[in-house]
Formats: sequence, C-alpha cells, structure tokens
Amino acid sequence: MKLSILGCYSATPRTLNNTTSQVLEINNHMFLIDCGEGTQVQLRKHKIKFNRIKHIFISHLHGDHFFGLVGLISTFRLLTRETDLHIYGPKGIKEIVTLQMKLADSWTNYNLIFHELTSTKSELIFEDEKVEVHTIPLNHRVYTNGFLFKEKEGLRKLDINAVEKAKINVAYYRKLTQGFDVENEEGELIKNETVTFPGAKPKSYAFCSDTMYKEDIIPIIQDADVLYHESTFLEQHAHLAVRTKHSTAKEAARIAKKAQVRTLILGHYSTRYDGIEGFKKEALSVFENVELAEDGKTFDF
Amino acid sequence: MKLSILGCYSATPRTLNNTTSQVLEINNHMFLIDCGEGTQVQLRKHKIKFNRIKHIFISHLHGDHFFGLVGLISTFRLLTRETDLHIYGPKGIKEIVTLQMKLADSWTNYNLIFHELTSTKSELIFEDEKVEVHTIPLNHRVYTNGFLFKEKEGLRKLDINAVEKAKINVAYYRKLTQGFDVENEEGELIKNETVTFPGAKPKSYAFCSDTMYKEDIIPIIQDADVLYHESTFLEQHAHLAVRTKHSTAKEAARIAKKAQVRTLILGHYSTRYDGIEGFKKEALSVFENVELAEDGKTFDF
Repeated sequence: MKLSILGCYSATPRTLNNTTSQVLEINNHMFLIDCGEGTQVQLRKHKIKFNRIKHIFISHLHGDHFFGLVGLISTFRLLTRETDLHIYGPKGIKEIVTLQMKLADSWTNYNLIFHELTSTKSELIFEDEKVEVHTIPLNHRVYTNGFLFKEKEGLRKLDINAVEKAKINVAYYRKLTQGFDVENEEGELIKNETVTFPGAKPKSYAFCSDTMYKEDIIPIIQDADVLYHESTFLEQHAHLAVRTKHSTAKEAARIAKKAQVRTLILGHYSTRYDGIEGFKKEALSVFENVELAEDGKTFDF
Repeated sequence: MKLSILGCYSATPRTLNNTTSQVLEINNHMFLIDCGEGTQVQLRKHKIKFNRIKHIFISHLHGDHFFGLVGLISTFRLLTRETDLHIYGPKGIKEIVTLQMKLADSWTNYNLIFHELTSTKSELIFEDEKVEVHTIPLNHRVYTNGFLFKEKEGLRKLDINAVEKAKINVAYYRKLTQGFDVENEEGELIKNETVTFPGAKPKSYAFCSDTMYKEDIIPIIQDADVLYHESTFLEQHAHLAVRTKHSTAKEAARIAKKAQVRTLILGHYSTRYDGIEGFKKEALSVFENVELAEDGKTFDF
C-alpha cells in the first residue's frame, strides 16, 4: 500500500498549501480520496496516470474536499478517456456535476457512475476479489463519511512438512490455501490450521476527515494499519474545534490509541499556525506512532 | 489601465499553464475577467487584494473559464468578506453556485449579486461615473460574451488664454469643462470648442474569448486601445478552429486590423504547441502591433 498526499490543508488552497486530496495505491487500484481545487495539477506534478484512477471517494461537499472534482472529470473528457469512472460521495454530488456538464453542453465520452451515499451507518461500498471499501460515518457540519480500505484475507501458506506427514494428496493443496479442511489419503479429516500457516496479514487504511472527536468510529477502524485523522487545530483552539466540528491533534491521537491502530497520520491543518510540528508534538503526548501529512509526501506501508 | 494575465491557456490547467483569468485595473476598479480553476491561487501569487475585486465577468460556462469561481466565492466567505460581489455571466451561473452553497450549507456572509446574461445583442451591463462595461456577443459552442471596458469621456481642459479673451466669468469654468456652451459677460454665446481642449482620450479594453472568427464584433470594439482576442490555433490547425468554434492567430489579427485597434494581445493557446512564438509570427503577417499574453505578465496602457 502506498499513500500519496496531494494536499492536506484545510479551508482554502494557497500558493504553497493544497486542500485535501490523496491517492491510495492498494492491490493495483489507485483510489483518489477527496479532490480539492487544483487536484488535477497535483496529479500531474506527481506523475500519476489519470487513466489509472477509476474510483474517486468524496468525504463531504465542503469545497476544500471536492471543488477540483468537476475540473478533473472535464479534463478526463478532454483527454478522450474511455475508462469508466466511479464516484462515491454524498447525495447531491451527481446534480452538481451534471448541472455543469449540461450548461457547458459537454458530456463525458466515458461512463461516469455515481454512487450517492445517504446512510449514517457503515456500509460496504466497493468490493472485488482482493479489496473492500467501507464508509466510516463521521460527525461534521454536513453529511460526511470517512473511508476504510481493507485488503481481504489472502491465501494461507502450506506447511509442507506437515502436509506431507499428514499424507494429503497434492490435488487438495489449493483447497488448503483457501482455508478448507480436507481428507487425507487414508480418509481422515485434517484440520486446516494443523497443516497451514496464516497468509500475509491483510492491510487496511482508514481515512477520517472532516470530523469532530467521535468514538463511534473506533469499532470500524479498530486495528487499522494506518489511520489518517484530521487535526485542524492545536489544543489552544480546542474551542474552535468544538464550534466548527473539527478535531484537535490530541483528539486524533486519542482515537488512534483507543482503536489500537499501528500508525496515525495527521492532516487537514488550519493554516493559522507557523509550521505543523506542533500537531505532532501534541499528538505524541497521547499516542506514540504519529506521522505528519505534507503536500507531496508519500507513505509506504 | 493595467491588465494582469493570471492564466491564458485553453482546456485544462497544467503544472505551468493556467486557464483563463485576468484582472483589469481601470479607474480604481479591479475587474476579474473569467476564473479558471486555480484563479484564487494566482490572485495570491500576484498579491492582488481579494477585497478590491467587486465585479467578476464570466464569458461562458466552459470549465477553463469558470471552474475557479465557486472556490473563490467560498474563500471570500472564509476570509469573512463583507463587500458586495457582483457576478456577470451566462444564465445558469447562479444555479451552479447556489446549488453548491446549499449542499455545503455554506452561504456567503456578504451580498452575492448575480447578473445573468441571455441577450445576443451587445448590452451595457455596468456603468458608473467613469467607466462602462458592454457585452460583446461572441460565437462559440455555448452562449458566450466578450466584454468591452470603456472609460467615459473625461472633462475638457480650459484654454485659459481663449477663456479670458472671451470674457467668460469664472463661475462658468466648470460648465465649460463639462462641454457646455456658455454666455460671456457681454451676453454673447461662446461655443465650447473655441475655448477648451478635449480631455484625455478615454481608454478601452476589449476581451474576446472564446469565439470563432466573427466580424459582427467589429463595430463594438472599433478603435479599442487594446483587444485581447483568443487564438487557440495556428494556421496548420485552422480546420480544428472551425470545428471547435475557436480562432487562429491570423483570424484574431484580421479582426484587430479591421477594427483598427491599437494593440492586439493573443491568448487562449492550445497546449499542443512547443512555445507560443508561432502565434505572434502568424498574427504579425496581418497586423503590426501584436503582444503575447503569458501567465503572470502585466500590460500597462
């Protein structure tokens, strides 16, 4: 899994700060998460091939998370894209995009498939053989979802010594890797876990922005390898976090700790501060493994 | 008059090319003309004070001319703007903006006044004591207007020798500068032009983008000091200009020549070419005074 941060600042794009957008590479997918104004230029800067993006996930309809979407869709059209594009986001997103296409008399030549979200419970919204994406209902000023990207359990590995000793026919090896119990050549039932090892641990990434501190999300993101949690404010502005339904760095860390994630990445910083080191410092007082998102930074995990 | 080019490329924003937007300073106004994605960042780069922009003119609803508008409006809100903002553009622009404000539950705390355009004839759409703005109906794939910015005739200058010789009372001097004939102290009617000089010649700027070659605009832009005319293509792609309702550099120059403007500025270049010098070369074969718009360039005239 590789995460590329295209933008991680709140509110408005600036000369050196981009608003929220990131690309998650997982099992050959390139998922675009949020799409602030200027995202298409950030994608070019990072040399991310437009055609590899087939799924875009929009957390909520505040401008700093989606004002770049219609431009990206339009650019895909101008570049004569043919690949389907799936858009997951709050109800209304389809109307916003199609109204602008209608008034510009510029419909896409590729399939644009909207998956509008309305549920306030976690839903499975994407699934293939290897990956699942679930929503994470958040608590912000408008309807907002985070997204949990999860690899599925991979194949188990054979314990060759044990398999041979148990006299299992080679024809059953594939069933064993899939986790089934099988009969050996003497008709005896062999328990799968006695002759296989677990496969590689599936990885998971939870994106949670924008949201106020919300413990309800903990069961959903429990044990995630990486949690990106917004931290718009430092403690000195905790009152603003409450008023605007955002989180402080410490609150993000508290969620990370309670959910026992491996790594916490902070982002969605207010631009009122000189530098972002303060966010890390405050979060580290609660949770030990904290990283700072920065525009242009990539994380491999 | 000062013109700042924020972006002058067609189709899509790129790492080094911005889509259409420019700021015209004229008689203490700062008029923003078109607003492609990323315009707010370009305004910051040029250190143009957001609050000085009170009027935005949008030529048409193709993305490269207005996808930055909703973000700019939203940023003005976040910066707690109080000044009224007037938006002039094709019918539909209000719905696009307000739909997004509604879904984001983020209404402006300043007055946002839409002036939706539908006429296919030139109209006076803004006027104060010193400046007028008229539409220039263009011919593109969707409803499009250029804009003519004109200073009004200024006060005439007194020919002091002639005035004294004509025995005109000082009380009438102001009327003379306003162009009226007046009676002298002997009750004789004095023709204004015999005792005054013309005031400074009022300046004018015509913005014409996007459009195919259209001679109907010539009477509207006749004698303009500066004409910005789109030139998306070079001659080798003249067939594409026809098909997409754009102009070539030569066609832009032909309009400039027939309208007897002083200076032609070319822009809205397709990014298919290596460099933009070819546009100037081709236009110069038709019209002698050609300038090239470039992102970040300013013109004083």
